[in-house]
Amino acid sequence: MATVTHELALGFDLGGTKLAGALVDPATGTVLARTQVPTVFEEDRLVDEMVGLADVLSTMLPDGIQGRIACAGLGAPGLVDRDGVLRYGANLPGVLDAPLALGLSQRLNVPVAAENDATCAAWAEHRVGAARGHAHALIITLGTGIGGGIIADGQLVRGGNGFAGEPGHMVIDPAGPECPCGRRGCWERLGSGTALGRMGREAVAAGRGEAILRAADGAVDAIVGEHVSRAAAAGDADAQQIMERFGWLVAAGTANLVALLDSRIVVLSGGLADLGELLMEPVRRHFAGLVYGGERRPTVAIEAARLGSAAGVIGAALLGVERLGELDPAAARRLTEPVQA
Amino acid sequence: MATVTHELALGFDLGGTKLAGALVDPATGTVLARTQVPTVFEEDRLVDEMVGLADVLSTMLPDGIQGRIACAGLGAPGLVDRDGVLRYGANLPGVLDAPLALGLSQRLNVPVAAENDATCAAWAEHRVGAARGHAHALIITLGTGIGGGIIADGQLVRGGNGFAGEPGHMVIDPAGPECPCGRRGCWERLGSGTALGRMGREAVAAGRGEAILRAADGAVDAIVGEHVSRAAAAGDADAQQIMERFGWLVAAGTANLVALLDSRIVVLSGGLADLGELLMEPVRRHFAGLVYGGERRPTVAIEAARLGSAAGVIGAALLGVERLGELDPAAARRLTEPVQA
Repeated sequence: MATVTHELALGFDLGGTKLAGALVDPATGTVLARTQVPTVFEEDRLVDEMVGLADVLSTMLPDGIQGRIACAGLGAPGLVDRDGVLRYGANLPGVLDAPLALGLSQRLNVPVAAENDATCAAWAEHRVGAARGHAHALIITLGTGIGGGIIADGQLVRGGNGFAGEPGHMVIDPAGPECPCGRRGCWERLGSGTALGRMGREAVAAGRGEAILRAADGAVDAIVGEHVSRAAAAGDADAQQIMERFGWLVAAGTANLVALLDSRIVVLSGGLADLGELLMEPVRRHFAGLVYGGERRPTVAIEAARLGSAAGVIGAALLGVERLGELDPAAARRLTEPVQA
Repeated sequence: MATVTHELALGFDLGGTKLAGALVDPATGTVLARTQVPTVFEEDRLVDEMVGLADVLSTMLPDGIQGRIACAGLGAPGLVDRDGVLRYGANLPGVLDAPLALGLSQRLNVPVAAENDATCAAWAEHRVGAARGHAHALIITLGTGIGGGIIADGQLVRGGNGFAGEPGHMVIDPAGPECPCGRRGCWERLGSGTALGRMGREAVAAGRGEAILRAADGAVDAIVGEHVSRAAAAGDADAQQIMERFGWLVAAGTANLVALLDSRIVVLSGGLADLGELLMEPVRRHFAGLVYGGERRPTVAIEAARLGSAAGVIGAALLGVERLGELDPAAARRLTEPVQA
């Protein structure tokens, strides 16, 4: 088979434990090669690691495809400003005010975008995932915390500093649990995977949820959200009651956001999205009763994300394409032809 | 003085009690003539009233100015869709699914925009008021309820149906007071002028707030927000304590919105904006401690609106100019020369 050189987009997803990288077909978002390394917590070495990962990825392409990197993108957990500087990352000690987009761009000699990681995942779901074709979409990442991304009129809402899309620290219950951010009742203390685990531990501590405890091999402190959902799926009434309450909490925050943004579709992503209908069904049901103007508002679709844990690298790569398009529209247009091996 | 004919924008602000209209300089937002009539609650007659008001306004222009209406806009209290149809208005019984933009456009033979009234006020503050020059602004109208408008990247965020910008029904306390919308603890039950009045009545019922009661001439049931603020301005400690709590509630909802939208300026409008620093100072102080990423986020300006009750008609008129620009960009550009009498 003849080897053809294609222009590809490179995407990185920087996390508190690992740095994932992928080479992506810029036209379709298809991941052509993907790998990861442990995160290093030094700004200079982070850029080195990314450059090294790019080389490794280039050797991992399917037979018959040879890639030239045309642009790159990076998602990071924290506040990333509109110049691609990681101002602060909650799980990234040692990385502060780091001009990652600039550093990577100088080394790779291509345009580089940097955004919040949940923003990248949101862009991926909007372009090639569950919210594809929807100009008004809200993507909510339910994981350890709650992140998100807002699409309005087909555009990413970035905000004045680039910090937009942080619904996790919307206070929805001033009497709720304390948040490390200093307030009480932030949505992510109530509607995240972490919160589901806490609800499971509280139920067991109160003498309920036997099946939840069994799912965690009898260790109360080891109970996480997954044990609750597994027990609920197996028919445990206590666990199902928790899922019901949890669905209400997810729906309540979602309804607040839709009242404000009037999104036509809400995509739930992150680890909890894997629960599928076990989560979607109660969220949809409670949302219908909670959203403002419910009976006058056309039905808002609530769907599980489609791209799984690859959303971050795909979205980062596709935001790299957008960045290229701002600097060189003709070059970006050339990337719209799908790669065919 | 020679009479010169200028192209003007016509703006209407439809309320539950009155219909206000104005002729506006499309370049500067200056109101050249303004009047109002009582609201009629029939769709067909509403359009007649607006056409009649346009004729009256034309006779009210300053000496030396003769106007030709180039475009018009209408703000209405409720859900107005992206086709300018008033789907539902809480205070407008008898007006349902009313195609007001189309009806008015056919009668006046000019392009007509229709939007939610708070959205119109927001656009006016963005273009010619307190948020002028800010591409990322949030305008919050604190009155009987809480309305709002979002500006992102210099554009109005309208949402999928045109219903965006309804922060009043964001639930910020599930244990809070009941809302006619069917939920509990909607922000407008806690941070509106109506809420401030309720807090005053509750204080008096509990034997406090003597000065508040005096401000209302001794009638507990007659206490409204203004009586509380007046007593606070006069130095009453109970009233000041209420203003402090009220400032926290306004700041809490505002912080939720800024975490999500990353606005650089927040403009508080509506009746309560007249309180000036009595309201702004506690809101600013509490906001600084409440907003996510506070120490990393450049200071968010919190300012009182500048256009007062005229914001609705001015914003409607200027959205009419935007509508004209979508249909006939050259015609809209002609309107950017200020009227000089």
